[in-house]
Amino acid sequence: MARRVSFDELNRFAVSAFTRVGVSEADAITAADVLVTTDAWGVFTHGTKCLAGYLRRVKAGGLRPRGVPRVVAEGGAWATVDGDSALGLVTSVFAMQTAIAKAKQQGIAYVGVRNSCHFGGAGYYTWLAAREGLIGLSMANDIPSVAAPGSRGAIIGSNPISYAVPAGRHRPVLLDMSTATVAGGKVYAARMRGEPIPDNWLVGADGKPTTDPSGYPQVGALQPAAGHKGYGIALLIETLSGILSGAAFTWRVGNWMWDDGTQPTNHGAAFIAIDTNAIMPAAEFARRMEALVDEIHAAPLADGAERLRLPGEIEWDRHDRAMKQGILLPPDVVGMLADVAAEFGMMLPLQVETPSTWSQPTQEPPSTDLTKHP
Amino acid sequence: MARRVSFDELNRFAVSAFTRVGVSEADAITAADVLVTTDAWGVFTHGTKCLAGYLRRVKAGGLRPRGVPRVVAEGGAWATVDGDSALGLVTSVFAMQTAIAKAKQQGIAYVGVRNSCHFGGAGYYTWLAAREGLIGLSMANDIPSVAAPGSRGAIIGSNPISYAVPAGRHRPVLLDMSTATVAGGKVYAARMRGEPIPDNWLVGADGKPTTDPSGYPQVGALQPAAGHKGYGIALLIETLSGILSGAAFTWRVGNWMWDDGTQPTNHGAAFIAIDTNAIMPAAEFARRMEALVDEIHAAPLADGAERLRLPGEIEWDRHDRAMKQGILLPPDVVGMLADVAAEFGMMLPLQVETPSTWSQPTQEPPSTDLTKHP
Repeated sequence: MARRVSFDELNRFAVSAFTRVGVSEADAITAADVLVTTDAWGVFTHGTKCLAGYLRRVKAGGLRPRGVPRVVAEGGAWATVDGDSALGLVTSVFAMQTAIAKAKQQGIAYVGVRNSCHFGGAGYYTWLAAREGLIGLSMANDIPSVAAPGSRGAIIGSNPISYAVPAGRHRPVLLDMSTATVAGGKVYAARMRGEPIPDNWLVGADGKPTTDPSGYPQVGALQPAAGHKGYGIALLIETLSGILSGAAFTWRVGNWMWDDGTQPTNHGAAFIAIDTNAIMPAAEFARRMEALVDEIHAAPLADGAERLRLPGEIEWDRHDRAMKQGILLPPDVVGMLADVAAEFGMMLPLQVETPSTWSQPTQEPPSTDLTKHP
Repeated sequence: MARRVSFDELNRFAVSAFTRVGVSEADAITAADVLVTTDAWGVFTHGTKCLAGYLRRVKAGGLRPRGVPRVVAEGGAWATVDGDSALGLVTSVFAMQTAIAKAKQQGIAYVGVRNSCHFGGAGYYTWLAAREGLIGLSMANDIPSVAAPGSRGAIIGSNPISYAVPAGRHRPVLLDMSTATVAGGKVYAARMRGEPIPDNWLVGADGKPTTDPSGYPQVGALQPAAGHKGYGIALLIETLSGILSGAAFTWRVGNWMWDDGTQPTNHGAAFIAIDTNAIMPAAEFARRMEALVDEIHAAPLADGAERLRLPGEIEWDRHDRAMKQGILLPPDVVGMLADVAAEFGMMLPLQVETPSTWSQPTQEPPSTDLTKHP
């Protein structure tokens, strides 16, 4: 059942959990903010749902609770960061801050990351840049789960990419997407419901598109978004995250959830920051972005459409609501957090939210007023 | 009818045509190489087919034959280039060369471009970077032709993006894609054949997906590739090309083919170069890229698939054949070039290629040996 929790309570819970496995207070605060902000955006697949998995790897030793990410090589507008097998969240914040600092000097900067792990939601890091008036890009590789046009099985990760652009009086434009057509979770959910899927989600055992999810994930691989386009972008992400950083790439990356927890996964990631203030007067950039956003908001709507949105608007609306009314956690996240609470003897004050007709992690939560459900 | 022409003959023809409207010899050579190389890759929609349109704009005054692109603002790892309404091809080569030079100093560089025009094939510029051992990215905006999820009509350009990555003993990995599902030309071709189209190519007058191309391009707009993903990437391209460069954006961009030829179109573009040699020893980067390419080449194939390719392999195969056997120009390009030849009293030695079963511009030409068709 879905449960409501305040941002701060959930944050404290996550900080506490991280510190109980030996993560420093400072790093725990950093990591918790990544996860809970991601939940507040409604991206529940990459928020505190991942907490249990991270804690398990820390306890097993594959993630080092006192690992210290550091710059191991650098130039004017670039750096390579070795994550020292610290939490991917901590390493990624450090890497984006490094990119921001260098971009403020040079206009743009690239930071490649190795010896990292799953980095959670890609959007948090680009928001760090946009918050300071910079354009941010973040991306990461992962073990292959996505087919290429013509391959029988997976050959590349679902390699996520995010960007955020400050937009004057509007919230930053913020995209966070994988390069697969859909997340594996959506295929699996269709399997659980016994329903067929669109023919551009999955390839079957023969490598051909299928509408039958019944064998997934044991059989088949996800399809790249827009075929060769998503495949091509995934390869660019692999290059910038996995190849140029010196990290593991494709099958050499460890599975952060299922592989031997005692070993590092050596995920790669890449962060790019562009300082718009260095390149154009801040007021002019803001005015131009506002004009772009306003123009799109004012454009004629398709029949049946209610609004035309910029990337991130749905997430910002959820974020606003979450800060006022608490975050309505879907049942699967509640279950994961309950396991963490039980293991560490912790309490998480969750409010019952009934009746809940809401079961899809990425679906819009009902806009229930919390004050009516004391 | 398709016609075969040698790379050098076609190049001389294009150089000659440019100089006849007042473009300097040096700029004509630069621009011709962009167009003919793009033809050699088989990307005929963006090669010498565009020549007639560029010449028309030069003659009308909207493109300045002696325009001189220059850096109008710069910092350590960035520059803004004003194209001075020179040929977009000339301005783009200058901009990418500027990005390459700065990246060699700083590791990465961004160059935004304003007062440019249609820049032809995005892949040429990224290949310039890859040829020198750098990763290149190029992108540009254009007048809106693509809908957003929920919009009734077009709100954003088909904004192309290309990247190229040097890959050791392999040819550079080279992707050149638009952010629409398909090119408008494919929709129009289906209309001409009276055939229905897949439901993710076009929206109709009501803004909803349609399989009926009969009204296009007067009615409807292209759909973004992979829905909100292609839309989101198109907005990033608009930001880096059109907003941050100070160029025109969305509806403010001129239509290079149909608008008043006396006026500049003020297209924007963006170029990013990353010097892999600054970041990682050249041999190590090459070895890692080779391992990635080799791994993909060796991956199991889907039923019916003959080969698993990296982006650019089809184009490089065509390029090799074109250099040996000449470029087999599709009928629409032949027609455009014949018009240019007639207008300027020029000769283009085209060899008849019969029988030609090949009429699709982007289709693989038959691998006919030129020596058998004297």
